[in-house]
Amino acid sequence: MTTSQVASDATLSLEARYCADTFNGAIASAAISAAWEIGLLDALASTGRVEISTFAKSREAAPAVVRAILVALSSRRIVTLDAARLEATTDIGFESAFSTKGFFYWLTRGCGELFTTLPTMVRNDDRLGEYVRRDARSISVACRNIARTFFDPPFRELIDHIDFGTVADLGCGSADRIVMLAERRPGLRAIGIDVAEGAISVAKEAVGEAGLEDRITLVQDDVLNLTPRAEYEDVDMVTCFLMGHDFWPRESCVKTLRRLRETFPNLRNLVLGDTCRSTGVDGPEHPMFTLGFETVHTVMDHYLPTLDEWESVLDESGWHIADRQLIDLPAFSFIYRLTPA
Amino acid sequence: MTTSQVASDATLSLEARYCADTFNGAIASAAISAAWEIGLLDALASTGRVEISTFAKSREAAPAVVRAILVALSSRRIVTLDAARLEATTDIGFESAFSTKGFFYWLTRGCGELFTTLPTMVRNDDRLGEYVRRDARSISVACRNIARTFFDPPFRELIDHIDFGTVADLGCGSADRIVMLAERRPGLRAIGIDVAEGAISVAKEAVGEAGLEDRITLVQDDVLNLTPRAEYEDVDMVTCFLMGHDFWPRESCVKTLRRLRETFPNLRNLVLGDTCRSTGVDGPEHPMFTLGFETVHTVMDHYLPTLDEWESVLDESGWHIADRQLIDLPAFSFIYRLTPA
Repeated sequence: MTTSQVASDATLSLEARYCADTFNGAIASAAISAAWEIGLLDALASTGRVEISTFAKSREAAPAVVRAILVALSSRRIVTLDAARLEATTDIGFESAFSTKGFFYWLTRGCGELFTTLPTMVRNDDRLGEYVRRDARSISVACRNIARTFFDPPFRELIDHIDFGTVADLGCGSADRIVMLAERRPGLRAIGIDVAEGAISVAKEAVGEAGLEDRITLVQDDVLNLTPRAEYEDVDMVTCFLMGHDFWPRESCVKTLRRLRETFPNLRNLVLGDTCRSTGVDGPEHPMFTLGFETVHTVMDHYLPTLDEWESVLDESGWHIADRQLIDLPAFSFIYRLTPA
Repeated sequence: MTTSQVASDATLSLEARYCADTFNGAIASAAISAAWEIGLLDALASTGRVEISTFAKSREAAPAVVRAILVALSSRRIVTLDAARLEATTDIGFESAFSTKGFFYWLTRGCGELFTTLPTMVRNDDRLGEYVRRDARSISVACRNIARTFFDPPFRELIDHIDFGTVADLGCGSADRIVMLAERRPGLRAIGIDVAEGAISVAKEAVGEAGLEDRITLVQDDVLNLTPRAEYEDVDMVTCFLMGHDFWPRESCVKTLRRLRETFPNLRNLVLGDTCRSTGVDGPEHPMFTLGFETVHTVMDHYLPTLDEWESVLDESGWHIADRQLIDLPAFSFIYRLTPA
């Protein structure tokens, strides 16, 4: 018996092939995150080709593991390898995987432990206290990439014609957004607000590196329980991305949205960008991110509003929709520009 | 704007769809493991249908999380849900997923942490000491299911016409195999050998439950360094499943196989079943298990021989191939019946 006989024996039924694709999808997903983290995705993106031993040497990495990651990527057509498996070139799936790497990183690095231990978070008795552990650092890296890639371009379009002198970013995380805004608008002052001490310290570094300490202030404060402060008085623009779903359920969302007008008395524009719970999507139609976003929030017992629920809450909360951009990726996402009603 | 407009906006390109399938594959893989562990897969297998609130009540589980697991399964056609998402029925992908659940469990429960932290095991400096953590309990549960489902039927065929009075099972784990053999052969005596204390204690329980203490002995011993013992003298059949690759690299495999003849002086048959490194499989052709098995062993820096390498080592090690079964699932797997050359 030869090797080729074994390979042909292993020809799969359609169902078995589909099932193996599910299995390989799990491995390729982890490989996308790993490849991004070690610089392999960027190397592939810049030249379309990576020579394994050269790359491994440059990273003081084990060539066999770099190769294993590339083989995993090849199982989902992200790269192809030559017969001797010495180098990899980008394949038809590369562009999609590269542009959505933030979602994979969120899933496998940020929420990996949640999915590994999923069966231990199903029984009511197991769902008490802090039963979910996620990797906050990885989630913030993922969200920064997702915001930059998918929310920042329509966000810039939405505000390019709007005047504002002081912006406050709610849930500022690494300060990526206010640094971007301050760099685009020479006179702008900005306040980054985040409840997490870790976020504030990362943000401080980023602001320092950008040389923007004179125009950007960082405040550790709970976005869900803001009260007026002297530094909030001049704020005429508030932005809030990828955290609006934390305002919910409905009653507390109304309260939080109303309170923003008291906290920021001179607020003229509120720009809110987020991903909603899907509607009308079933089974294998689930687009990128939707299934992960919804599974994780269900396991954590966090409410996710639909787009219709968002629209229905704004009037009641004292806000008028001045402008809106719908976003296809991640699906069921929006950016609203709201003005006081 | 209505909900259906959003859904149609989200219609995906082929590449984006394929990429979302990769992402959803990771979630569905974890959901298969979870569904098996909480009894949901077995419930679906027995009646083809599960009513979510009834199932959740019977398990004291959160209905929303049971539903989330089923929705994740639906993303890979394992089940379908009704429009109100009150119940799930098996879909065309169910049979494949159900029969291969052991591989998914091995991957997401047994090796979940390895894949989550994959990027931290690439650099040479990070690959020192015990850098890989796997869940030994989950891996043993997975391997027992894999052995029962895919190796036991051809194994029984292979030995049904063979006489033996005392069998020793190397790497016996939970003692599943020797309990099965002892139950099928009333006069048989059996010895289970495993290096892991945890395995021996689980095996003791299983032997006790089967009421086979008088015929089954358990020995904590290192299969890679066996030496003669009084209880090994009567052994005329040795079995060894899913651990033969640990004998390698080649030189130590030759030694281990030779030593078996000294350790068991009356040995007449050695039955060896294992999965090999694939050959001639590339990219999206990777069948069930292959990519996971090979990625994990590469990360752990463990050698995996090919089928040809196995064949080439037997002669030199003093064994003759008396009979052989090739196994398609997991691909590149075999069971040899070997006799002293």
